Amino acid sequence: MDKALLRKYASLAVRSGVNVQPGQLLVINAQANQYEFAGLCVEEAYKVHAGKVMVNYVDENLQHLDMLNCTTETLCDIPDYLYEARKYAQDKKACFLSIVSETPGLFADVDSTKISSYQQARNKKMSPLYRYMMNNEGQWCVIALPTVGWAKKVFPDLEEKEALQALWKAILQSVKVDENNDPVEIWTQHDKKLKYYCSVLNKHHFQKLHFTNSLGTDLYVGLVKKHNWVGGSSLSTSNVQFNPNMPTEEVFCMPDKYNTNGTVYASKPLSYNGKVIDKFNFTFTDGKVTDYHAEKGEDILKSLLESDEGSRYLGEVALISYNSPLSLSNILFYETLFDENASCHLALGASYPENVIGGMNMDDEQLAQEGANDSIIHVDFMFGTPDLKVEGIKEDGQKIIVFDKGNFVF
Amino acid sequence: MDKALLRKYASLAVRSGVNVQPGQLLVINAQANQYEFAGLCVEEAYKVHAGKVMVNYVDENLQHLDMLNCTTETLCDIPDYLYEARKYAQDKKACFLSIVSETPGLFADVDSTKISSYQQARNKKMSPLYRYMMNNEGQWCVIALPTVGWAKKVFPDLEEKEALQALWKAILQSVKVDENNDPVEIWTQHDKKLKYYCSVLNKHHFQKLHFTNSLGTDLYVGLVKKHNWVGGSSLSTSNVQFNPNMPTEEVFCMPDKYNTNGTVYASKPLSYNGKVIDKFNFTFTDGKVTDYHAEKGEDILKSLLESDEGSRYLGEVALISYNSPLSLSNILFYETLFDENASCHLALGASYPENVIGGMNMDDEQLAQEGANDSIIHVDFMFGTPDLKVEGIKEDGQKIIVFDKGNFVF
Repeated sequence: MDKALLRKYASLAVRSGVNVQPGQLLVINAQANQYEFAGLCVEEAYKVHAGKVMVNYVDENLQHLDMLNCTTETLCDIPDYLYEARKYAQDKKACFLSIVSETPGLFADVDSTKISSYQQARNKKMSPLYRYMMNNEGQWCVIALPTVGWAKKVFPDLEEKEALQALWKAILQSVKVDENNDPVEIWTQHDKKLKYYCSVLNKHHFQKLHFTNSLGTDLYVGLVKKHNWVGGSSLSTSNVQFNPNMPTEEVFCMPDKYNTNGTVYASKPLSYNGKVIDKFNFTFTDGKVTDYHAEKGEDILKSLLESDEGSRYLGEVALISYNSPLSLSNILFYETLFDENASCHLALGASYPENVIGGMNMDDEQLAQEGANDSIIHVDFMFGTPDLKVEGIKEDGQKIIVFDKGNFVF
Repeated sequence: MDKALLRKYASLAVRSGVNVQPGQLLVINAQANQYEFAGLCVEEAYKVHAGKVMVNYVDENLQHLDMLNCTTETLCDIPDYLYEARKYAQDKKACFLSIVSETPGLFADVDSTKISSYQQARNKKMSPLYRYMMNNEGQWCVIALPTVGWAKKVFPDLEEKEALQALWKAILQSVKVDENNDPVEIWTQHDKKLKYYCSVLNKHHFQKLHFTNSLGTDLYVGLVKKHNWVGGSSLSTSNVQFNPNMPTEEVFCMPDKYNTNGTVYASKPLSYNGKVIDKFNFTFTDGKVTDYHAEKGEDILKSLLESDEGSRYLGEVALISYNSPLSLSNILFYETLFDENASCHLALGASYPENVIGGMNMDDEQLAQEGANDSIIHVDFMFGTPDLKVEGIKEDGQKIIVFDKGNFVF
C-alpha cells in the first residue's frame, strides 16, 4: 500500500478518530505485524502534541499457539499486571486506538470451551475497567487493517496479493480516505448526517420498534423511556469529540431490558472469538433469549449466551440504511466493525450509558432502573435485509414508518 | 533468509540457549518487526513442552520517537506494572530469551542527558529484579537478529539487501548454524573447550593478571580470592544447563573491586544506549576509574560512569583468543554480544555472583566482602589486540604467560 495513503489513514485515526489532545497519553493496541502502520500513528500523534504514545503489540498467531498448547488452567491464569497496565492508562485519562487486524476463523481448530473459559477469566479480571470506554471517560477509536488471511476469507477467488489489495481498497473507501481528499473534513460532514437521523428519531420518541422482513424476522424492541439515539462522533466526559468506530454508518439506541418480544433472523455470519457462527436466530420473551438455533457454530452461540445473566438480553439496537456505501459494496467482511455498519443490528450484552439521557452520570443501579442491561459481553449481530421494514410505535399507539425496503424514509 | 535455517536457529535458541523445561514459562523479548522469528521460537518452545510462552514486543523506532517527543519527566515516569510484569514471570521461575535486533546509533539525535535520566529511572525501578538473572535463578539467553540499519552500519559499502545478507551470514556463522549441521551437538563440543580453559585458569589461581600491548594498555587486574573462572554454559539454581550468550567465546572472572591499577585503551567502539563511544581509555587507581578520555562520545561515557557508586569499578574481566572465529571474521558488529566475543574485555559495574565460589548463595553484603562490585549497570568494553600479552601473577610472585600475541598459550 502507498505510504502516503497509509499516513493519511493514520492521521485520520489520530485526529478524527481518537482526537488525541496536547499532553494526553495515547495507547495503541496493534498486531505486531502492523508495526509500520502503528509507527505512522505514533508519528502523527506526536505531530499533534500527544504527551506520550504507548503501543501494546499483540500477535494473533501466538495467541493461537497458546490456545492450542497451553492447559486451560494456564490460559485462565490472567496476570494482575494486565489489569494494572490498563488501569495505569485510564487513571491518566488516556485515549485508546485499537487497530483491528485479525484472521477470521483462525481459532477454528481450538476447542471452543477452552476459548470461552479463557474469555471468561479475562473478562472477570478486566471488566471493572470496561466502564471507562462504555462511559466515554476518555476518547477511543477502533479502526482496521487488512491481513492476508482476512483478505483471502473476504475474496476467496483472488490471489493473495490481489485479495489484500481489494481489502485495502474496501477499507480505505469505507473510512473515506483517498489520494485527493481531505478525510478529516469529509468525516465532519458525514457526522452531521448521522446526527440529523438521531435528532429526527429522538423527536419521535418511539416506545418500541417493530422489525419485519422475508427472512422471518418479526420482532418488537422496546426502547427505554429516557432513550437517546446516538451516532457518529461521541463526546468524552472531558468534552472532547471523537469517532469511536471508523467506519461508522449506524445510529443506535438502548432497548428496554425486559421489553423485547418476537423472533429475529441473522442476515450475516458472526465472527466471534476467532470462530464463525452462521444462519442463526433468536426468540425473545420479555427481553430474554428463550430459544435459539444456529446451523453453524451453535456451541459457540451457546457459550456466548451463557457468559452471564445479561448475555441473554439486548444492549443495543442500531439502524443503518441498506443503501449506505458499505452496504452497497456488498462485501461480507467477517468483521463486526464493517459488517455492523452495513446492516441493521442488535447487540447481546451491555448497553451504552450514553443511550440514556443523563446515563453517563448514573451508577449501575440507576442505569438498571432505566432499563439498561449489564454484562461482560457486548456482541453485535446483523439482521438487516433489502426488504426490512421498521415501524416506530409511539406511546399513544401511533405508527410511523422509519425504514421501507431496507432504507430510512426520512 | 531461508525459513528452514531460521527455524534451526530458533530451535537452537530454545534448546541450547534457554533450554526451556516441560511446563516452564518462557518469556521472549523481541522487536515487533521480528515477529516471524519470534513465532518460530514459540513453535519450537511448545514442541519441547513449554508450559506457556509470553512474547513482549518492543519497537526501537517507537522508543526513538518517545525520546524525541516526550518530556524527561514523562519518560522517567516508569509504570509499576512493568515491574510487576517481570516479577510475575520471575515468581513463576520463568526462563528468558532476549532477541537483540537494534540499530546502532539510532538515538544519536537524542539529548544524552535525557537518555541517561530515563535509563536511571528505569534501572531504579527494575534493578531489584536484576539479581534473578545475575544469580541464574532461571535460565536466560541473549541472541541476535540483523536489521537493515544494523547491517548498513557493519557493511557500509554494501547495498541494503547485500548488507543484510552478509550480517545474517556472519551471525549464523557465529552461532554455528548452517544447512548441514546439528548445531545443538556442536554447541556441546564448544562448551567443553571453554570449560577446559576455565579449569586450567582455576588451577593456576592467579592473584592478578597483567595486560600489556602496543596501544598503551598497562593494567593490573586483581582477582577476588575465591574467584571462579566461568565460560560457555551455565547452570541455573534448579540445575538446568543453558547458554546465556549465543555466540560466546569468552571465559570470565571477577576482579577484586579495589585492586585494579594502571591504564587500559579500548580497542573497539562501544555502542551504549543507541550512541557510540570511540577511542577511549580509563586509568584505574585502587579499582576506581580516576581518569578517562574519549575522542567520541565522552559525554555518554561520563554519564555512564556517574550512574552510581559502582559504575566506576570493574565487575568482569574476560579472555578471548584473538584467533577465535568471531575475532578472525574481523567484523566490527557495533553490538556487545558479538564484539565482546571477539576480544578480551572488561566490564564496568555489577559483577556476576557465579564468579565467586559459593557466590550464588551469598547476599549483597557477603559478596561485597569477597570483593564483588555492585551497580545498576554492567557495560562491557573491548581492549584485546593481536599483540596483547597477559601474564598471570600468583600469590607467591610466580609469573605465568596466559596470552601471547593475543592468544591463549594453553
